[in-house]
Amino acid sequence: MSAAASTVLSSCKVVLAGSIAKKLQTEVADGLKRLSRKPHLVGFLANKDPAAKMYADWTGKTCTENGFDFSLREVDREDLEDAIRTANKETSVDGILVYYPVFNSSRDRTVQFMVDFNKDIEGLSPHLINNMYQNIRFLDPPHNTQKSILPCTPLAMVKILEYLQIYNTILAYGQRLFGRRITVINRSEVVGRPLAALLANDGAEVYSVDVTGVQQFTRGKGLRKQQHEVHDRPDMKMEDALALSDVVISGVPGDKFKVPSALVRDGAVCINFSSEKNFNPDIKEKASIYVPAVGKVTIMILLRNLLRLVQNHPENVAKAGADDS
Amino acid sequence: MSAAASTVLSSCKVVLAGSIAKKLQTEVADGLKRLSRKPHLVGFLANKDPAAKMYADWTGKTCTENGFDFSLREVDREDLEDAIRTANKETSVDGILVYYPVFNSSRDRTVQFMVDFNKDIEGLSPHLINNMYQNIRFLDPPHNTQKSILPCTPLAMVKILEYLQIYNTILAYGQRLFGRRITVINRSEVVGRPLAALLANDGAEVYSVDVTGVQQFTRGKGLRKQQHEVHDRPDMKMEDALALSDVVISGVPGDKFKVPSALVRDGAVCINFSSEKNFNPDIKEKASIYVPAVGKVTIMILLRNLLRLVQNHPENVAKAGADDS
Repeated sequence: MSAAASTVLSSCKVVLAGSIAKKLQTEVADGLKRLSRKPHLVGFLANKDPAAKMYADWTGKTCTENGFDFSLREVDREDLEDAIRTANKETSVDGILVYYPVFNSSRDRTVQFMVDFNKDIEGLSPHLINNMYQNIRFLDPPHNTQKSILPCTPLAMVKILEYLQIYNTILAYGQRLFGRRITVINRSEVVGRPLAALLANDGAEVYSVDVTGVQQFTRGKGLRKQQHEVHDRPDMKMEDALALSDVVISGVPGDKFKVPSALVRDGAVCINFSSEKNFNPDIKEKASIYVPAVGKVTIMILLRNLLRLVQNHPENVAKAGADDS
Repeated sequence: MSAAASTVLSSCKVVLAGSIAKKLQTEVADGLKRLSRKPHLVGFLANKDPAAKMYADWTGKTCTENGFDFSLREVDREDLEDAIRTANKETSVDGILVYYPVFNSSRDRTVQFMVDFNKDIEGLSPHLINNMYQNIRFLDPPHNTQKSILPCTPLAMVKILEYLQIYNTILAYGQRLFGRRITVINRSEVVGRPLAALLANDGAEVYSVDVTGVQQFTRGKGLRKQQHEVHDRPDMKMEDALALSDVVISGVPGDKFKVPSALVRDGAVCINFSSEKNFNPDIKEKASIYVPAVGKVTIMILLRNLLRLVQNHPENVAKAGADDS
């Protein structure tokens, strides 16, 4: 390899999800110490997909390793809704996690809506998702002591962007992405669209890209709006969004789609959340920072959300100093 | 004032130089504690300008308040060069500061070049300025123990951009502006041009603007170059540079020039280093951060440069722990 080529590689910093997850893990461990009991997560497996079973086992292992109780309930998919209703009422259950896809249709969305929002660690139930879209950050306004739960992968992305110093802590909370332009490729209901909304609510100008075209999510000039608005941008293609963007986040499923490296701005921050790699290896010749995967951060966010749900009930939090005894 | 208007104002964070200077002041005080003696700065006043006298008095006061010795030597301007040669040789003189303008012509540049670089706290003598342009960061390569001295106002700007988290500490040292686009309005030999070079050497794409047009300072795609290169951009006007820039730094003397707020990007960081305000008040409706003046940071950089010059001589640094006795 020539000296020039090695210089090229060294200008891109590759950041692994494991490094980012560590800080969250410490935060979760500290929170856990202050609780009077172990939180209990129940996972529902209602399909025969070996990948879902593997993910369930990984969740269980991560829970146990981090001091949470975990039970897996395997049920027939036609019994799933009843099983969730039961768990919603059980006081011994703090959090509910369903392994999707179950029906692999819009019925999965109905299942998500059935989880009591007080036990919804994925942040996808109607009350929580509405709070997110409307930029309402607490469950108990106007007291604002109980933070609302945000969807896992979008919140994981926020934590990644905080770690990467894309959030500017000099700015006021809720405005720390002001001045940033971010392209999000994927506009699914569970990740891409909530993510675009969340980043725009924090002040970014977001270009949300999918096969149907480009939409712009923004709080407007000088962040005049309290929450984001969405505008169709029929005048823009993905390449126009990329040319403008400091940050490119991509999560297109499958191995067919690749972000064309040549269209990415020199020095952009690139993050992949697809299980396949959405960026080609030569992205390292363009990007200032590249995050190839985010799964390890997402799972720590699951635990952090569970912790937060438990903390929202003051009777679960030990009195100050109790953890020192 | 309507609620909407108050929202507008709150989205711009105004950062005063005093807040930024505080951190530097602490750093300087800590360094001073480790010295075996007080550093001595000599100021040369060779004009009859009351403004220069006021600045000299302010320098003296700041030196004294921060634990430095200061002497003012008032000389006839025709005797100035001899007086500098004398001070260059005096072991009791650690730093030399000349209050410009003296001749108000290119002869002032000759005077600057006469200051021994070991005593040049302004960082404008040939050896130091050449190091800066060539991105050579130490005085003693390959040992690299003695940092080169950078010109005051450009270095003050770096410290301001670090404080504002425009430098991303996730990235490797020397590349922390990679991905940033910065417009610098002013291309003087003492501030604007060295500043553009310094920021480009740290990885930024810099648009240097003056009445003659736009030049681009850059280390190229993926920071392939070790130091910046300069390209004329006859295809660009100031408005094109502003439309691309995350950061706008302006230092045009006099009160005639104003950066047109309408051309500044929404959410840009705006910094004024002119003694007059180069930005109109309505910049706060556009910018995410606005720094209206930088003088208090620049003077702390003067002291920091002086400290560094003294620290470059190991005999001046007390042995570890000596400051605790």
